Amino acid sequence: ELPGWKHVRDRLEATWTFDGHLQALVAATGVGLLSERRNHHADLTIAYNKLTVSVTTHSAGSKVSAKDTDLARAVSALLD
Amino acid sequence: ELPGWKHVRDRLEATWTFDGHLQALVAATGVGLLSERRNHHADLTIAYNKLTVSVTTHSAGSKVSAKDTDLARAVSALLD
Repeated sequence: ELPGWKHVRDRLEATWTFDGHLQALVAATGVGLLSERRNHHADLTIAYNKLTVSVTTHSAGSKVSAKDTDLARAVSALLD
Repeated sequence: ELPGWKHVRDRLEATWTFDGHLQALVAATGVGLLSERRNHHADLTIAYNKLTVSVTTHSAGSKVSAKDTDLARAVSALLD
């Protein structure tokens, strides 16, 4: 249902590879805009041209919640 | 010599806290510009309003090198 996303412990994670570092940073900023709109923020890791997006819901005891799958779906719609 | 930076295993790391998520992403993009100029890239982690910058030199056997301390100094000059 969420291609590219994996359950890693109590998180949902996905990684994208871009042409370069700045493209990965622009993509991270796009994810940040989606997070701000939802007041639900993914952790973002940029390693050169790779961006990893990781979501969990702290208020749900660090479990994957509907907030996470909604954000994950929006991120995929932005980056896939 | 590099206030705020710590040796963590074979890396130099520092964390900054900003007013919000988008400010942290803008700061990360600034670090990315410094990295591109040097062709030496820090790993960047953004967790809500915190940005962690982590540098190592893979070609030096993942040790801290002069490239790392140069980048760290430039990042501090940008963000401190």
